[in-house]
Amino acid sequence: MAGTPTIAAVARHAGVSVATASRALHGQGASPATADRVRLVAQELGYRPNAVARALQSGRTGQIAMIVPDAANPVYARMTSAVQHELAADDRQLLVAQAQEASAVAAAIQRFGPQLIDGLIVVPLRPGPQVLDALDRASVPTVVIGSLPESARQGVVRADSRAGVRLAIDHLLERGAHRIGFVNGPVDTTPGRLRLEGYREAIAGAGLEHDPSLEVAADDFTYAAAMPAVRALLDRAGATAIDAIVAANDLIAVAALRALADRGIDVPGDCLVVGMDDTELAQIAIPSLTSVDLGAAARGTLAAAQLLAVLRGDAEATEHTTVEPALVVRESTTRRERR
Amino acid sequence: MAGTPTIAAVARHAGVSVATASRALHGQGASPATADRVRLVAQELGYRPNAVARALQSGRTGQIAMIVPDAANPVYARMTSAVQHELAADDRQLLVAQAQEASAVAAAIQRFGPQLIDGLIVVPLRPGPQVLDALDRASVPTVVIGSLPESARQGVVRADSRAGVRLAIDHLLERGAHRIGFVNGPVDTTPGRLRLEGYREAIAGAGLEHDPSLEVAADDFTYAAAMPAVRALLDRAGATAIDAIVAANDLIAVAALRALADRGIDVPGDCLVVGMDDTELAQIAIPSLTSVDLGAAARGTLAAAQLLAVLRGDAEATEHTTVEPALVVRESTTRRERR
Repeated sequence: MAGTPTIAAVARHAGVSVATASRALHGQGASPATADRVRLVAQELGYRPNAVARALQSGRTGQIAMIVPDAANPVYARMTSAVQHELAADDRQLLVAQAQEASAVAAAIQRFGPQLIDGLIVVPLRPGPQVLDALDRASVPTVVIGSLPESARQGVVRADSRAGVRLAIDHLLERGAHRIGFVNGPVDTTPGRLRLEGYREAIAGAGLEHDPSLEVAADDFTYAAAMPAVRALLDRAGATAIDAIVAANDLIAVAALRALADRGIDVPGDCLVVGMDDTELAQIAIPSLTSVDLGAAARGTLAAAQLLAVLRGDAEATEHTTVEPALVVRESTTRRERR
Repeated sequence: MAGTPTIAAVARHAGVSVATASRALHGQGASPATADRVRLVAQELGYRPNAVARALQSGRTGQIAMIVPDAANPVYARMTSAVQHELAADDRQLLVAQAQEASAVAAAIQRFGPQLIDGLIVVPLRPGPQVLDALDRASVPTVVIGSLPESARQGVVRADSRAGVRLAIDHLLERGAHRIGFVNGPVDTTPGRLRLEGYREAIAGAGLEHDPSLEVAADDFTYAAAMPAVRALLDRAGATAIDAIVAANDLIAVAALRALADRGIDVPGDCLVVGMDDTELAQIAIPSLTSVDLGAAARGTLAAAQLLAVLRGDAEATEHTTVEPALVVRESTTRRERR
């Protein structure tokens, strides 16, 4: 099948902007002649009237869906909990679907139509062409938690991963670290790419030499995937050569705690460790984990609020918001006096 | 706007009923001549087999929903992951909703109709009259992971909490424990009630005296709720009076690890700890946690398989299955030779 013609195709053939085509098809604010031309082109192309407007008109299902990469990562538990709290006030129920690979995310977006849900929140780790295209063709109002191009029509709420890693590095430098290892997740993901950039910027900014042997990347942002990556870093660098580790999330950080404990390296005595996301794991870990709060809860709340505003018709769908990070200091970077 | 031709239009132009047109387009049970005519008409009209319409006609939305009590508890991450894996083989997507209070669970069940989902898996902590009534009125096939009365019409997959606690106690007795504390979750829940019964049975079975001061119950099955309960147990019993703790789940067990560490009580040297559910937390914890696997993954797989069988029409919906527990021994009950 050729695929559904997009509003962009209709606009191009009608010789108008996408915004004008959209207004014409939704009966808002285009001149009658323009509206007629757009509708004719839409009909000829077999364009299906964007279901967004239909969903808005036909009332509501009371359901909002959210697509997260990994339901087992506590950062998404924190995020979905914040979303659910915000939606409950509007008497809407949250349904969470898990999808990580681009094809699975795109398929999940396509499955959700206005007969199922009122709106959609997507957390894409790899917002490449396939996901962007699926987002553009989504048939309900959609807000993205992640990074999209500035031109994206969707509402976007993003973390500032680079600033987050800088906070971690600055904290470790203050506490006397000199050789700071970085255990990343996959670099072909948005967080993986930005956190690596943040690490390199902060190291350079501190006047330290860039040492590629201090950088490793796990195959996934999970505990299981992190363990061999951490071990490789320790093997490569030598057990005493690293005095601090920044992990790209808390699951990777607790894998670092375990790998260090297995080698008899004391945290925080011999090596400092900082995680990211400030999940419940950071409190649970022994030693408890210093972690960069990238605003998972705030991002969830903002995304839900923005989606509800769009559904009420009193906000633009294209707002892009960034949540600032904050460092939460715990035992893993706090050297105590020996008793 | 003319919009996309409907199946009704196709049927009208082909001179057949909507049902026949639908069957013809989906390759089911129309005569070859009729099927050809319908397909030709559909092609001429530009009828696009609408996924939604197809789903409604074939009685299939492709979505299965699951209601869990607490998305932040890793046991449900393990369970939903097993369900999702089983459903994916049947090309169905899992949607997870969170609801714990009886009224919220009942409301969630009521929200899910056949226009949204094909089937439902419910994990109720408190299957009282309100939840049972909602289950009886559910408008899609439903399987319950939990305990329902034997008379329940729904398919049921349950853990054996009592046998699970007995495994934990027997293991601790073998390892030399004499005063075994029990940190439960809320006793008005199915797992809370059964785990307490299992604890008392096992203590009595070992010929030990029942000591109510060794039993505490947290307000919820969470880390945060467990912490004051564990501290109360340690305060009450005296820091050296307990030589082992059984926790009603892994979140409570890691709270025990933390509370013991805060008082300088070594695990496993001075006190043994056993959790339940064998979640990823049990591996992540330092020391790693001996835990009773209550078959969360197996329960998820069985529930999904049973639901799919019901949807295929080749199983009774009232099957009740119990998954046996297994003990997974790790560092928290393994005393090592002092190095």
